[in-house]
Amino acid sequence: MSVEVIEKQIEEQGNEVRRIKSDKSATEEAKKEAIEKLLALKLSYKEVTGKDFAAPNARQQKPKQEKKKEEKKPQPKKEDGKKQTKLGIETLKDENYSEWYSQVITKAEMIEYYDVSGCYVLRPWSYAIWESIQAWFDGGIKKLGVKNCYFPMFVSNAALEREKTHIADFAPEVAWVTRAGNSEMAEPIAIRPTSETVMYPSYKKWVQSHRDLPIKLNQWCNVVRWEFKHPTPFLRTREFLWQEGHTAFANPQDAEKEVFQILDLYSGVYTDLLAIPVVKGRKSEKEKFAGGDFTTTVEAYVPCNGRGIQGATSHHLGQNFSKMFDISYEDPNNGEKAFAWQNSWGLSTRTIGAMVMIHGDDQGLVLPPRVAQIQTIIVPVGVTAQTSEEQKAELTATVEKIAQDLVESGIRAETDLRDNYSPGWKFNHWELKGVPIRFEVGPKDLAQKQVTAVIRFNGEKKALKLEGLAQTVKALLDDIHTQMYNKVLAARDAHLKTTSDIEEFKKLLDEKCIILSPFCGLPECEEEIKKASTREDGEGAQMGAKTLCIPLEQPKQELPSKCLFPGCSHAPKFFALFGRSY
Amino acid sequence: MSVEVIEKQIEEQGNEVRRIKSDKSATEEAKKEAIEKLLALKLSYKEVTGKDFAAPNARQQKPKQEKKKEEKKPQPKKEDGKKQTKLGIETLKDENYSEWYSQVITKAEMIEYYDVSGCYVLRPWSYAIWESIQAWFDGGIKKLGVKNCYFPMFVSNAALEREKTHIADFAPEVAWVTRAGNSEMAEPIAIRPTSETVMYPSYKKWVQSHRDLPIKLNQWCNVVRWEFKHPTPFLRTREFLWQEGHTAFANPQDAEKEVFQILDLYSGVYTDLLAIPVVKGRKSEKEKFAGGDFTTTVEAYVPCNGRGIQGATSHHLGQNFSKMFDISYEDPNNGEKAFAWQNSWGLSTRTIGAMVMIHGDDQGLVLPPRVAQIQTIIVPVGVTAQTSEEQKAELTATVEKIAQDLVESGIRAETDLRDNYSPGWKFNHWELKGVPIRFEVGPKDLAQKQVTAVIRFNGEKKALKLEGLAQTVKALLDDIHTQMYNKVLAARDAHLKTTSDIEEFKKLLDEKCIILSPFCGLPECEEEIKKASTREDGEGAQMGAKTLCIPLEQPKQELPSKCLFPGCSHAPKFFALFGRSY
Repeated sequence: MSVEVIEKQIEEQGNEVRRIKSDKSATEEAKKEAIEKLLALKLSYKEVTGKDFAAPNARQQKPKQEKKKEEKKPQPKKEDGKKQTKLGIETLKDENYSEWYSQVITKAEMIEYYDVSGCYVLRPWSYAIWESIQAWFDGGIKKLGVKNCYFPMFVSNAALEREKTHIADFAPEVAWVTRAGNSEMAEPIAIRPTSETVMYPSYKKWVQSHRDLPIKLNQWCNVVRWEFKHPTPFLRTREFLWQEGHTAFANPQDAEKEVFQILDLYSGVYTDLLAIPVVKGRKSEKEKFAGGDFTTTVEAYVPCNGRGIQGATSHHLGQNFSKMFDISYEDPNNGEKAFAWQNSWGLSTRTIGAMVMIHGDDQGLVLPPRVAQIQTIIVPVGVTAQTSEEQKAELTATVEKIAQDLVESGIRAETDLRDNYSPGWKFNHWELKGVPIRFEVGPKDLAQKQVTAVIRFNGEKKALKLEGLAQTVKALLDDIHTQMYNKVLAARDAHLKTTSDIEEFKKLLDEKCIILSPFCGLPECEEEIKKASTREDGEGAQMGAKTLCIPLEQPKQELPSKCLFPGCSHAPKFFALFGRSY
Repeated sequence: MSVEVIEKQIEEQGNEVRRIKSDKSATEEAKKEAIEKLLALKLSYKEVTGKDFAAPNARQQKPKQEKKKEEKKPQPKKEDGKKQTKLGIETLKDENYSEWYSQVITKAEMIEYYDVSGCYVLRPWSYAIWESIQAWFDGGIKKLGVKNCYFPMFVSNAALEREKTHIADFAPEVAWVTRAGNSEMAEPIAIRPTSETVMYPSYKKWVQSHRDLPIKLNQWCNVVRWEFKHPTPFLRTREFLWQEGHTAFANPQDAEKEVFQILDLYSGVYTDLLAIPVVKGRKSEKEKFAGGDFTTTVEAYVPCNGRGIQGATSHHLGQNFSKMFDISYEDPNNGEKAFAWQNSWGLSTRTIGAMVMIHGDDQGLVLPPRVAQIQTIIVPVGVTAQTSEEQKAELTATVEKIAQDLVESGIRAETDLRDNYSPGWKFNHWELKGVPIRFEVGPKDLAQKQVTAVIRFNGEKKALKLEGLAQTVKALLDDIHTQMYNKVLAARDAHLKTTSDIEEFKKLLDEKCIILSPFCGLPECEEEIKKASTREDGEGAQMGAKTLCIPLEQPKQELPSKCLFPGCSHAPKFFALFGRSY
């Protein structure tokens, strides 16, 4: 998170604390909570900047706009050929992770900051990734017979509150519209935090007979969760884009089967598109979707800080919602009233954040080939003062021809022919933006009927023959995908440990591990494990561990007889995967 | 609009009137306006139902849910072979147009009503049309170099109010979020009614040099305009889906060129996809986009009520917004500060409403082939009590084979093999849903190596040879498109008149015409023409005419020396197209 964002949040939270202190109806607990939030924000400020936060009137007012302008874009330098090394990211990923993240997403032109806190602009460079994911996943669900639709984003209070467990989880984050133009509304209207309560009243109308089932609908839309925790672009934002699938079946078998078909598609988004290995599993009772029967998830691992990150979730809602919303029909077998079995499942733009964190490096973004808007960027090189206009024109023509051939073979290739930037500047620019392959094409290369390819993710250089170039590039892109995946997999597996001992568990956590441990499954016990692994002491403060999931594929070794938490008197039911988490 | 919706609106507006009457700060004018709105709503209630509105406590409380259930779906009847003729729409289009519309969109499963007024559910049958339009238009703008992105839906008040003319137009309809969870927000946040004010602060940051131009961005998103006029599904809804393109150029020529390129694409959506002819033109000063320099539009004609309907608009904003938002750079020619030239353009789900109104008939929806989710539905027929199981299986296999062949040739074909509905019921069902071609396939057809095709839009029946069937169907779909287009074009041209005489003008309006008349272009004069053509007398009450556009292609005849409005002292500048309008 950028310093600016934290500052803005501290300011906001400060206002909130002042407001709540003067609010006679506010409880003591609410006051305490608001103050704690403020302190937590100030702590992150210190983590990021290395110094204490000073109140706005104590700080020098920065001329913000001016600063933005300076930062905005590396100024091109005219000394052709001289490679400028520190064009882009000014922090090492391992040194100051959150500053690194903030710099990568802004300098690679994925995100623009925005003047409503917790909201961000998705620029074309990140939105194109979302479009790739959409196309792939949408194709997958359409094969399963799912159809797209669009439900309103507004929810009446009556519908919202129909399922109590569910709404209890979302209520604190719901944004309310209370005014239109200058008129107060008779009744406030909520903005969807998710659409179960928006959609299921219609499902009730549509289901009259078992023949009306299954219903399989999906929508691509925005949702709003007005969280008060630190927002982070892609990972935790107040408005975000996602798809939400909502299906209803006449029996639990078909519903459960679909939960896992969707989970496989989610896994595919990570493994096949984003080159990120994931663990498939179920969520613990504590972590599952409120109001549902069980939640399945794909969980990824972020090597640089050892945290787990939830990738996407597919829920089996059982009959909880169908009973609340009366989605029912007459059972043809016995003439009795029967309720539908339901699922809901969602994947959001958080995917893009996971991709940035996991693959990015000190030079900036590293894009997995299958979602990169540009897979190959072609830069002409070797033009000197001695090069004639004719030679230059020939080089340009060749570069364009190469690009055209690649594009015709289905490769997303572009040229960078701008004459006001040096090749060195362009190299850095496209590295920062994470393009998988850079071609450097100069007169010497062409004399040898080849181009020089530079691979973004490992910096390798290799000469590629012009003959059969498109085929070579296709194979190379696939190879890069596999290598990127394997690199992350190796890092993940090196940090995936198994232990039954709580002390070793805590040590492993600090060594950036995620850990398989025997677990009884009870929420109270999970809470205890979280507490035991929380470190509150100033500098090294660390959040506690929680279950990422109960892996579908359990370790081969025998389940120990004791739960990870020493005080637990229940027998463990399975190995759960624990970790610090986003 | 359905009776239920009007009732709800009357109730809401009644509350608003009571509220405003007891509000000491409300002006007399506001009160008068609110009461007038209420009266207008009661008038439409009478128009639709033929009786006066009775207050809720005077009306009998209807068991709403029960009624919905009855209406929801025609019950299948088991008398095979007997064609049930009044399965679906219970009103003739010419008899009670608004009731017809409401029945078509619900019974054809395009729309589900929703419990937030002015919001509707887009079911898969209508959303698929939107997906077709998206795919076609998105391809078109990407060829122009436009890239997709996503900006937040929330706008701070400060940004919203930057361009005064612009916001003056939208302010009365802006929805405001004032509360999150249980906390009042420090400052209310608006939901975008359109994104000029959301996006242009970022454009300011991105434009530092002439080299940063052009910027060509588009987003597919939802917007909210909390209108207090009657909502109508697709045509006027409080939330709707659209695309909005926002581009910025270094010179007015490039910007203006793009305005018309986009207009051509919009025209293509209507003519090439929806089979609807449109007139391309400019909006008058009175009707143009607030804050822009000029607005171009495509205007369609609705034969059954003679109204014009705005199809989509492409605006040239000039430098108005770039000056307000400081989207500027140093002109490389003279070193002076230069402002960008901007466009914005939008196309919404209103397209679908226009399609329903223009092509639909007494049997229900009529889908233009290129946007139909199912282009050919295949229904097995001729199965009698004498048909053996083997013959039935053979028929089913053949029907499936035919569908598969069509699908493999790129035709969206499906079978209807349900055994609990009669062929007659299926015929009506798919007619109601507007599928362009129905195949009836029975043993007799197969013996002759043919299928019977029934064309939805004109009811024609023809035998098609199985040999080369996919090619035949492709040609037939294209032919249907052309015929549908020509039918609407003929109806439009028969009602497109030219006159300079205001009395004839009024007469033509009542004969459901749209009219080309000489016009000075001044808003005052347009207001007078509207007034002159408004008819307030009870039963025959009619809204006044406004300019639909100033057609780009002007009539060949010489422009008369007098403006249409007799009292106007200005010389006419052009022929404007006038009409009653949506």
